[in-house]
Amino acid sequence: MTEEHTALFQLSLQQHALAVETLLNEVLSDRTRSGEIYRPARLMAAMRHGVLNGGKRLRPFLVMESAALLGGDAMAALRVAAALECVHSYSLIHDDLPAMDNDDLRRGQPTVHRKFDEAAAILAGDSLLTYAFELIASDETELPAKARLTLVHELARAAGVGGMTGGQALDLEAETVKPDEQGIIRLQAMKTGALIRFACDAGAIIAGASDSDRQRLAEYGSAIGLAFQLADDLLDVTANAGQLGKAVGKDAAAGKATLVSVHGIEWTRRQLAGLVDQAQELLSPFADKAGLLNAAASFIAEREN
Amino acid sequence: MTEEHTALFQLSLQQHALAVETLLNEVLSDRTRSGEIYRPARLMAAMRHGVLNGGKRLRPFLVMESAALLGGDAMAALRVAAALECVHSYSLIHDDLPAMDNDDLRRGQPTVHRKFDEAAAILAGDSLLTYAFELIASDETELPAKARLTLVHELARAAGVGGMTGGQALDLEAETVKPDEQGIIRLQAMKTGALIRFACDAGAIIAGASDSDRQRLAEYGSAIGLAFQLADDLLDVTANAGQLGKAVGKDAAAGKATLVSVHGIEWTRRQLAGLVDQAQELLSPFADKAGLLNAAASFIAEREN
Repeated sequence: MTEEHTALFQLSLQQHALAVETLLNEVLSDRTRSGEIYRPARLMAAMRHGVLNGGKRLRPFLVMESAALLGGDAMAALRVAAALECVHSYSLIHDDLPAMDNDDLRRGQPTVHRKFDEAAAILAGDSLLTYAFELIASDETELPAKARLTLVHELARAAGVGGMTGGQALDLEAETVKPDEQGIIRLQAMKTGALIRFACDAGAIIAGASDSDRQRLAEYGSAIGLAFQLADDLLDVTANAGQLGKAVGKDAAAGKATLVSVHGIEWTRRQLAGLVDQAQELLSPFADKAGLLNAAASFIAEREN
Repeated sequence: MTEEHTALFQLSLQQHALAVETLLNEVLSDRTRSGEIYRPARLMAAMRHGVLNGGKRLRPFLVMESAALLGGDAMAALRVAAALECVHSYSLIHDDLPAMDNDDLRRGQPTVHRKFDEAAAILAGDSLLTYAFELIASDETELPAKARLTLVHELARAAGVGGMTGGQALDLEAETVKPDEQGIIRLQAMKTGALIRFACDAGAIIAGASDSDRQRLAEYGSAIGLAFQLADDLLDVTANAGQLGKAVGKDAAAGKATLVSVHGIEWTRRQLAGLVDQAQELLSPFADKAGLLNAAASFIAEREN
């Protein structure tokens, strides 16, 4: 990635993050009443703490840039991006709970159950997951009913037992029974990959893309999803808590098998580079129009440094 | 309610319960592979334990009979009914967690976190909630896209921060700061009422009913939802654990305010009778066709005995 591409990508990532946070701040406002609806203040505060916490907003970026690549409506993409970030944030809130990964820190801030309490964290996660579907299905998301319905269906599949929550369950089991290499790859494709793949597929759905373009974007998403997890596993062994804003070295301490633990750091870095090439190759038919998505693939692999 | 009506209602409730359980048993089968999808066995077992546990299936009954009253497709109603039961079951699984109500028993069986562990219970709840939206949005639910989308939207609203999860949060807060009468009514309308109201509204949506029929069914749902909670509060002070299959006297022990604690048992019983009259009056335009829904209102009020 040239310096110019990097700068452009960073700027775009920040702009999309700002747009998503502005929308989330508005739709999850701390007003207790919204029309006839009453929203308990403390639960709303827990939801806001979990979702408005300065994340990179990579998944929203992928939704919005995938939609833009194929000519999708930017405002609809923003709403779907915000919904996806609600799902991602809910998964982190629940993952951080004492019964799960038991983390006190997330992006340098106390986790929701540390800032509030466990019950609030459970309910805030539940509420964010539920709200994601409300946001997509709402008539304010100006897409044909069929497109919104496909988005609901694909998001539910990606986030559910055959995707993210299934991957979280496999991840917990991996602490006691170490999976083999195929098991690790499957676990990661479900736990992290499914939502990232959905992000890219969602952009194509929003744009009303052809099946082949949907497939292409989804495969791009799968490649960078796996790259994302490899980079994360590398970070766990090479970074320190200050850089990362959360506890490190937890995989090794928990005896968790990752591709880094199986193959080592150098092999994993080469794999990562191969996945970036593969992702960028998939977008080659779009030539220069895919510049930002190509840069995203590089960014994901390089954030380890 | 005459003996004949009671018998007919009981039979119908059992038949619908069997149909819903058959569908849930199939779509949440314990096969680990479903096409290309991998579903972790232990998580599936926890989901099945939480949802296939012999509940009365009152909410599914309401979806199916509300749809039938207005001429809705029975198979579509069954799928929506099953989705709603997934949401209801998820809420019980999370509500039973140590950080929430800390219950060991549910319908005479160990709760999901007692049978499995807390992490499995959190993820099983998350997965059932997510699956509900997949089930409704699926093309196998043979309804127009717009109707499925409305169902997704209304279910998300009923189950989220302005509905059920908001009500659960208020319920936990009520242990420390006692709500006044209006606060209790709002809490209960959100915690229990919203899903029951949705069940009846859903039937009307499935049937493609007019706005006024949707409104009428939803108001019937609100009335029996409040009745349901009053009967529940009465049960908590009058039943024993053997009858109920779960711990009793917990409201008083937790110092929770209910309308029973404010107004006493006799007043609450009179209120309950008034709500049944109100619910049945709302259905009077449908005359005899509403027989089973009228019987449901009576059943809800009388289950205390």
